[in-house]
Amino acid sequence: MADVARVAGVSSATVSYVLSGKRPVAPETRAAVEAAIRELDFTVNTTARSLRTGRSSLVALIVPDLANPFFAQLAAALEEGVRGLGLHVVVCNTGARRDEERALLAEAVQQRFAGVVITPFRLLPRDFQPVVDAGVPVVVSADVPFGPVDLISPDARAATREALRCVTAAGRRRIAMIAGPRDATGGDPRLELLRTLALQFGTSVPRDLVVRGEHTREAGAAGFGELMQRRYRPDAVFCANDAVAVGAMDKARELGVDIPGDVALVGHDDAVFASLVRPQLSTIRYPVGDVGRLAAQLLRERLDGREVRKNVLVKAEFVQRGSI
Amino acid sequence: MADVARVAGVSSATVSYVLSGKRPVAPETRAAVEAAIRELDFTVNTTARSLRTGRSSLVALIVPDLANPFFAQLAAALEEGVRGLGLHVVVCNTGARRDEERALLAEAVQQRFAGVVITPFRLLPRDFQPVVDAGVPVVVSADVPFGPVDLISPDARAATREALRCVTAAGRRRIAMIAGPRDATGGDPRLELLRTLALQFGTSVPRDLVVRGEHTREAGAAGFGELMQRRYRPDAVFCANDAVAVGAMDKARELGVDIPGDVALVGHDDAVFASLVRPQLSTIRYPVGDVGRLAAQLLRERLDGREVRKNVLVKAEFVQRGSI
Repeated sequence: MADVARVAGVSSATVSYVLSGKRPVAPETRAAVEAAIRELDFTVNTTARSLRTGRSSLVALIVPDLANPFFAQLAAALEEGVRGLGLHVVVCNTGARRDEERALLAEAVQQRFAGVVITPFRLLPRDFQPVVDAGVPVVVSADVPFGPVDLISPDARAATREALRCVTAAGRRRIAMIAGPRDATGGDPRLELLRTLALQFGTSVPRDLVVRGEHTREAGAAGFGELMQRRYRPDAVFCANDAVAVGAMDKARELGVDIPGDVALVGHDDAVFASLVRPQLSTIRYPVGDVGRLAAQLLRERLDGREVRKNVLVKAEFVQRGSI
Repeated sequence: MADVARVAGVSSATVSYVLSGKRPVAPETRAAVEAAIRELDFTVNTTARSLRTGRSSLVALIVPDLANPFFAQLAAALEEGVRGLGLHVVVCNTGARRDEERALLAEAVQQRFAGVVITPFRLLPRDFQPVVDAGVPVVVSADVPFGPVDLISPDARAATREALRCVTAAGRRRIAMIAGPRDATGGDPRLELLRTLALQFGTSVPRDLVVRGEHTREAGAAGFGELMQRRYRPDAVFCANDAVAVGAMDKARELGVDIPGDVALVGHDDAVFASLVRPQLSTIRYPVGDVGRLAAQLLRERLDGREVRKNVLVKAEFVQRGSI
């Protein structure tokens, strides 16, 4: 560390602040230290540091469905955000199962991770308490609060209204939703928002046009199949996320239902899927790069000593493509 | 642990074998113990166990490009394979950068991970020695050996021959490849195989129809753009992987080049991308589920004490779709 300090022309204490993120360091100073570290091919002795600070240099990103590219994109953005802190991201997949979600939170405590960013699905607020008590910073990325931790949420009101405007302007009135499962802890804010806003366009989302399933491609196919068996068939289907929408497209193709001729389809997130499929998927874009960067920033503030909880809203926007 | 043993009707030692994976346990016994653990909502005290065995319960999957869904699929299969061992998978993304690859291997040692599964890109054989010395089992998933560790590779000879047969049967003769970067440690076995086999079909892959880049969608777009500027334009393009092929499709659309009318396109891996794009991508399918399961099995054998190195070949197969 003395060598790094010498090469960078700073004190050993400053090098230590850059490595630990414990005190703010001027950007130029940080850059000089980082350059010196690269020059010396200096590897932080994580074990020694863990013993000193009680923290590893790993940040866990815990997600419900790694097969959904939205979460791979989130991982990339988070990684970029924490790289300057000398931290690495490890991604853990829960399959939206509560036992896995709890086990991975427990691992984060036991391994003394530097932080956790999580999209929970079936956790209860009390599940976060041990992590908070252990002093591991947690950022939840979800539509609603999940516990006594920092939160990043989409503000999708304007985007959903715009999506409904496009759909209804084309004369569609039979609005359906392939929503999340009934036992998700956060309820289904996307469905509630759609229902509320549909009224403003003189239509509604009737109960028998709401089907439920996991936030996966498989569940989307099953849900779309169910909707197509209704006597009162929908002419527009909103989906809980893009993975669900891609599954709906799979099933539409199988059934010979034309998208958008017979049914308009709207996803949520704008994962990389959305622009790959044909027709391309209209979707409520949740800017994943911003979410990842914000999560890194919230973690950093916590590591720097912030104790007050923060809720951050990220504006979503409607992206119109071929599916409506 | 005594409670688990009581509920499962086995000895404490047996419970310990199930948790540690140190000795083989009959499947029914394992199932009984696992059921008892679930019943008691018993969390393995990982820290205590780490102190005892020197190992955490985390397996690191280290990949070059998490944006490529092939690796998310690999993570899912590996997870399934190690779940019965009481292990969790954490996925780490290197961006194919050697410094990140080395840093993550170092983390795996320092955090005393239970194992590492890695698709290396720019590592040298000597980089693995510290991990091997620390007794952390490593499985490399790559086309060629990367060091003194277990290896899982595709056997793509028959599949590549079949792809060439289809392409040349349609009268195409100007075969190109968007290959990997020149400085990848493993060289480019996919290019070498294509070159060798092309001769059997009375054609070749001329030097100026080989372009190079990372194994990413962006590099695929750039590579395809380069090829389309050649005076001697290819009528068939093989790609280092499906991410590269999807990038090539992006560029073809931009340039107004018809796939497959003007140019046939062949990917590698059959990642979920391949069947989503239109036209669907013909590809050399590397069965990712088998790779994940085998990796879990190789890790398990190492944790059980195997010391002899294993190389496993997994048969690839050609999947013909709309892109040729």
